[in-house]
Amino acid sequence: MGFFSEIAETVKRNHSLLCVGLDPDVTLMPPGVSIFDFNKAIIDATADLVCCYKPNLAFYEAEGVKGWDILKQTVEYVPEGIPIIADAKRGDIGNTAKAYAKAIFDELIFDAVTVNPYLGFDAIEPFLNYKDKGVFVLCRTSNKGAADFQGLKLGFEGKEMPLYQAVAKKTSEWNKVGNVGLVVGATYPDELKTLRMAYPEMPFLIPGVGAQGGDLKLAVRYGMDNRGGSIIINSSRQILYASMGKNFADAARKAALTLRDEINLYRSAA
Amino acid sequence: MGFFSEIAETVKRNHSLLCVGLDPDVTLMPPGVSIFDFNKAIIDATADLVCCYKPNLAFYEAEGVKGWDILKQTVEYVPEGIPIIADAKRGDIGNTAKAYAKAIFDELIFDAVTVNPYLGFDAIEPFLNYKDKGVFVLCRTSNKGAADFQGLKLGFEGKEMPLYQAVAKKTSEWNKVGNVGLVVGATYPDELKTLRMAYPEMPFLIPGVGAQGGDLKLAVRYGMDNRGGSIIINSSRQILYASMGKNFADAARKAALTLRDEINLYRSAA
Repeated sequence: MGFFSEIAETVKRNHSLLCVGLDPDVTLMPPGVSIFDFNKAIIDATADLVCCYKPNLAFYEAEGVKGWDILKQTVEYVPEGIPIIADAKRGDIGNTAKAYAKAIFDELIFDAVTVNPYLGFDAIEPFLNYKDKGVFVLCRTSNKGAADFQGLKLGFEGKEMPLYQAVAKKTSEWNKVGNVGLVVGATYPDELKTLRMAYPEMPFLIPGVGAQGGDLKLAVRYGMDNRGGSIIINSSRQILYASMGKNFADAARKAALTLRDEINLYRSAA
Repeated sequence: MGFFSEIAETVKRNHSLLCVGLDPDVTLMPPGVSIFDFNKAIIDATADLVCCYKPNLAFYEAEGVKGWDILKQTVEYVPEGIPIIADAKRGDIGNTAKAYAKAIFDELIFDAVTVNPYLGFDAIEPFLNYKDKGVFVLCRTSNKGAADFQGLKLGFEGKEMPLYQAVAKKTSEWNKVGNVGLVVGATYPDELKTLRMAYPEMPFLIPGVGAQGGDLKLAVRYGMDNRGGSIIINSSRQILYASMGKNFADAARKAALTLRDEINLYRSAA
């Protein structure tokens, strides 16, 4: 079963569009708790509330060899049936991209990945070739710097549009077997709306709510589409660091429950 | 001493603009040789012929936890005084980019890094804050897919230019302390020429000669500039896999020597 079918199952089973970003930051974690124990506790506390998990590789790499090992253990610890996205934002020339795809899909056994479009098609193709895996292409990212290049107006196939729309257009053409989605930040609701209107059937991975200040209500309203387009709303810090005390896992569960239900509220209104 | 001063020293000492890309691909390596032993042999055979080394992280990540360990050992094995570039092409939002910078500069102790500009300034800033390290921003990459987005014409500060030139412009503005360079593929000599004319003093890291088919002569001629702009010519497969036999290290040395001297020939003609 492919990644997007698996996600559809967990969305239904857990009645949830929430993805928890497993981004362990030792400066924000409860003192004395190891990263793997922290991840285990967060997973145990939220596994019935999420549609998927998304570790960002940076936080593991920052811990060196040990971190890479914790990442592997974390992926293995997630219960069967809950898909896991590698937030890796990789992008390199063909033969190198193939090595990255091997690392993420064959070595760490992730179910999906985020990739960077700057290098064009051959940097993304090796990931797309894993037809049962999901590939989310960065389109409009959630950060302030997104405007630096993604917002620049350019000529593309005879039309004027910002770069991020050209990326969405190309990406939709690369989506031959339905294994591709876009990353669109909740911090840019107008751009999200425009993209959803242009690509009603494409899955969107939406970061940027919570600590980054994105508008959850608008993200859900603009992101949902009755023609099939699905959304995944990611939250990391708001859930992981709900408390720095011994009760961190309970606090994380409460925060995840609140967020899941808030998303569902906006979803039923949409 | 900062990265670009260190590079200037090795360029002089080894009379070389050659960077050897340490990209171990087990399918191309001599049978029975471990990755670390392979890297050691290549480094031993070429350390007096290069200005720097550049491992691409993908090839280590493809080997999992073990690969990350080999990467760390390899960085430690490179002799004192030869700088090492992490070809990582990372790019993520601010707090995540900070974790990547920590991974590459504090954990693996690289001297420089390659980064992806698609997410804009805040994705690159945490790397720039390491003032003694070098930061190479992907500008015009060496692959075929580079044209997909990097070549698109857009309006930037009132002028029409392709995306890669807008990236170069912004990057030059971010270069406050002289720790920034551009990645420009040898496979696009005209673009290289245009960039050198616009940014005479900026260091260029130039991949794409050898297996990728870039024009070495034009890369050197267009890349050098008597106003201070330096170039680093990277070669990986052409050197690493010069032979699959037991003599692979000797063959690599011969290939590196030939390439170094060829670069110097074009350099003195330029």
